[in-house]
Amino acid sequence: MKQEELKKLVGYKAATFIENGMIVGLGTGSTVKYLVEALGARVAHENLKIIGVATSKRTADQATSLGIEIKALDDVDHLDLTIDGADEIDEHFQGIKGGGAAHLWEKIVAINSTKNIWIVDESKMVKTLGSFPLPLEVIPFGSHHVIHKLENLGYAPKLRMRNNEIVLTDSKNYVVDLYLKKIPNPHELAMQLDQMVGIVEHGLFLDIVNTVIIGQSTGVKVINDIR
Amino acid sequence: MKQEELKKLVGYKAATFIENGMIVGLGTGSTVKYLVEALGARVAHENLKIIGVATSKRTADQATSLGIEIKALDDVDHLDLTIDGADEIDEHFQGIKGGGAAHLWEKIVAINSTKNIWIVDESKMVKTLGSFPLPLEVIPFGSHHVIHKLENLGYAPKLRMRNNEIVLTDSKNYVVDLYLKKIPNPHELAMQLDQMVGIVEHGLFLDIVNTVIIGQSTGVKVINDIR
Repeated sequence: MKQEELKKLVGYKAATFIENGMIVGLGTGSTVKYLVEALGARVAHENLKIIGVATSKRTADQATSLGIEIKALDDVDHLDLTIDGADEIDEHFQGIKGGGAAHLWEKIVAINSTKNIWIVDESKMVKTLGSFPLPLEVIPFGSHHVIHKLENLGYAPKLRMRNNEIVLTDSKNYVVDLYLKKIPNPHELAMQLDQMVGIVEHGLFLDIVNTVIIGQSTGVKVINDIR
Repeated sequence: MKQEELKKLVGYKAATFIENGMIVGLGTGSTVKYLVEALGARVAHENLKIIGVATSKRTADQATSLGIEIKALDDVDHLDLTIDGADEIDEHFQGIKGGGAAHLWEKIVAINSTKNIWIVDESKMVKTLGSFPLPLEVIPFGSHHVIHKLENLGYAPKLRMRNNEIVLTDSKNYVVDLYLKKIPNPHELAMQLDQMVGIVEHGLFLDIVNTVIIGQSTGVKVINDIR
């Protein structure tokens, strides 16, 4: 099956998890685009009533154009379900996000959501996290020193650049990617990074996701966390 | 002794801790103003050569006007000594800062400094921290939910406002003050707040300060931490 076709199948499958009346967090990415497309169709043809909370302007614009009501996160009192992509997911349903430099807002939406579904292709499923560089959102003031400390810890940090410019997040912070290769104990690392002054948030999403929908060459597979 | 006179004595005493060749973090506040004044005099009359790193534009401007060289934090590779005020200090030399909404930058400077001195009047010395509201720097996106969680924890959070406007930090974040009254275990609370998504930094400065210079009605007292 072609990659694009598979993404569409996954996105459409994810849309079936959304029920009438739900407040739904909508992530960002090429598979989420199909999810929003499918949701737009359900809103138009099945009279589905939902409220969406988007983690990016791109998703908000697409949803609005399809008749899905979008509210700001601070204008809803909870989220029932958030559906988003991920950059890496291990055997224990722990993940890395932030390739798109949006992991802070994505994490804020995710932790305020009763349930979380990640939609990915099978290349994102790994035994141990860490092949994908772990993104950190870092306060520009003093970032030189944060990077130096991360170097001393052996975490191979790299300030994210694009076209010779430092990449800025939506909150106007820097992104530092850790080229760790392997993260044997994600909880321990998360705790250490949480406590480092100047790091706003890291891209480890631990104990957050409940269901993963995977696009495989053989079709779409749904796995539920047994936790 | 008058309050203002005492502040001057404390500021001038603090200046004697600074040695030739040092890179010095300079805090902000009415006592720090006297420290910078004294340093300016030492630069002019004793040929003292130092580099200052300021936590605010106000301090940087004053220092520059007195001939003290100021560099950006990211342009020095370390700090020898930082001198700053504090809002509350307990018996174990743990403190609260952030009344001025600058605790994120102040903490970044402090933790990159080999030594830290706090200069305060005796009203800031307490048995247990917590009478002074504990400031948090919070990401605006989703802040409503962070405040709600802090309420559920019984931490009596209040979004800091001035003239009916939300106060913004230098990093364009909100300040939420926790009216805790007592903080029996600062390390435990710090750990919990470090792990909460959306909180950039809290105003607990733990295991950071080495020396406290206190302005008392009877004169100036210097206490060194025995750690």
